Amino acid sequence: MLETTSLNPQGKSPTFAHAFYRLTIADFKQLGAGNSVSKHEVTDLFFDQSNIQSIFLDKFDLKFNDNSLVMRAFTHSSYVHEAKLEFKSYERLEFYGDSVLGSYVTKNLFLNFEDMNEGQLSKLRSALVNEDSLSSLTDFLGLSQFLIVGKGELDQEVNKGIRCDLFESILGAIAIDQGNDKANSYLDQVIATYEKESGEVFFNAQKLVDFDPKTKLQEETLARFKCLPEYRTKALNKGQEFEIELYINGELISKLISNSKKIGTKEIAKECLENNLLDKIK
Amino acid sequence: MLETTSLNPQGKSPTFAHAFYRLTIADFKQLGAGNSVSKHEVTDLFFDQSNIQSIFLDKFDLKFNDNSLVMRAFTHSSYVHEAKLEFKSYERLEFYGDSVLGSYVTKNLFLNFEDMNEGQLSKLRSALVNEDSLSSLTDFLGLSQFLIVGKGELDQEVNKGIRCDLFESILGAIAIDQGNDKANSYLDQVIATYEKESGEVFFNAQKLVDFDPKTKLQEETLARFKCLPEYRTKALNKGQEFEIELYINGELISKLISNSKKIGTKEIAKECLENNLLDKIK
Repeated sequence: MLETTSLNPQGKSPTFAHAFYRLTIADFKQLGAGNSVSKHEVTDLFFDQSNIQSIFLDKFDLKFNDNSLVMRAFTHSSYVHEAKLEFKSYERLEFYGDSVLGSYVTKNLFLNFEDMNEGQLSKLRSALVNEDSLSSLTDFLGLSQFLIVGKGELDQEVNKGIRCDLFESILGAIAIDQGNDKANSYLDQVIATYEKESGEVFFNAQKLVDFDPKTKLQEETLARFKCLPEYRTKALNKGQEFEIELYINGELISKLISNSKKIGTKEIAKECLENNLLDKIK
Repeated sequence: MLETTSLNPQGKSPTFAHAFYRLTIADFKQLGAGNSVSKHEVTDLFFDQSNIQSIFLDKFDLKFNDNSLVMRAFTHSSYVHEAKLEFKSYERLEFYGDSVLGSYVTKNLFLNFEDMNEGQLSKLRSALVNEDSLSSLTDFLGLSQFLIVGKGELDQEVNKGIRCDLFESILGAIAIDQGNDKANSYLDQVIATYEKESGEVFFNAQKLVDFDPKTKLQEETLARFKCLPEYRTKALNKGQEFEIELYINGELISKLISNSKKIGTKEIAKECLENNLLDKIK
């Protein structure tokens, strides 16, 4: 288990990324496209420079048989293109990690939500596993600081897509090197510490309301009133804003102003669910 | 490992299904909707009547902590509706098993096809895991013989969709009861015995050609000739049949007659790939 909560909250460390780039790419070029540098040496350099063992791996009792998988999990294709060595980037590990995560989340949904059918579980899974939630977990773990990129990316912010990839690629590396059960217990630990820090329950059905309140509301109105919710919108200020009204069974339930029809209808559905406005309908 | 290849090749055993239905539903009704029958007793009856332990589970060294999960993996919703007991059907287990299978297959693709990128791996996964392949594995294992259905289904053939579900639902039950690594080693055994019996390699890139030869051919012609394949079709016998011609780079490559445009164009693409007809193009 994590003993401390000192994980770097976000962003990559320019110090590591720059230093590693200089020590590898620049030197490889001098050495004649790096023919004399072995994958083993570069992996050692990655471990030394990034300090990943103590900063991240030790906190989850992770000791890899093949350390090069760890480096690979953090290697962006932009670095591979410049290094001109036989490096591999993280994409294939991420592809595998995605399926490991899918199976882990599905198991937890299966065990935690006994009353939901598979259609509801599937929707809840989409609400729980998406770019927002995965990039938050990457930020929580401070994974972006280990990212290895090409020169053009060295000073860039690590975008959400890449942060999401990193969460899945290191997971894929763990599952390849240590097996699925170890990957699952790593995820258990990550989620337990995330919940402790954030005070938020990860496997929380409420997230379905946040993620897709319109579908949720539709299910409720169909079940309770055998009708669909109706959203009436009216453009205001020459289309700069919209007045959005929610009707159920012909009855006006709520009204708001938004500068986007899409966001506004989502908001009004969420408000209706959270404030139990359906209970007031005769 | 399997010692024999005597697994029942296909179909459910009407003897078991009828007998189990009679012993449960009919008796439950006499007992007043089964209030006096426990889940434990019904599970024992399922094990006794189906002989699933020796016919199937023992062959893969499977001993469940919770036998009711095994029964649930074979319980179709049509039985649940009639039994009026607190039974659960297999759908949620199947939903979980699907994700376990996805992660297993992805790992094997990752390890076996080092040169494929994640897009190619994703296509190959679709070619390997689909209703045809899963229902074949169910038939190979003889799983349909353990299916528990309602009265209206007792004398029906078990359709492909249900056979596909059964492969995933028992896998889900194994992973819930025994963990992911055990589920993966079960799959390893299933595939090894399937390969031995059928003489066919399961993780075989050739299946991509069989599954989607038109996409595969398009990739090849784009890579080699920077053009798309062209399918010219002509209706024959008042639209009863079609003459299909394949042109690449304006050159006629092959020609066939089919009674379906869809099947015919797939066939001609497959023929072109399998007989290396592209090599003959100047």
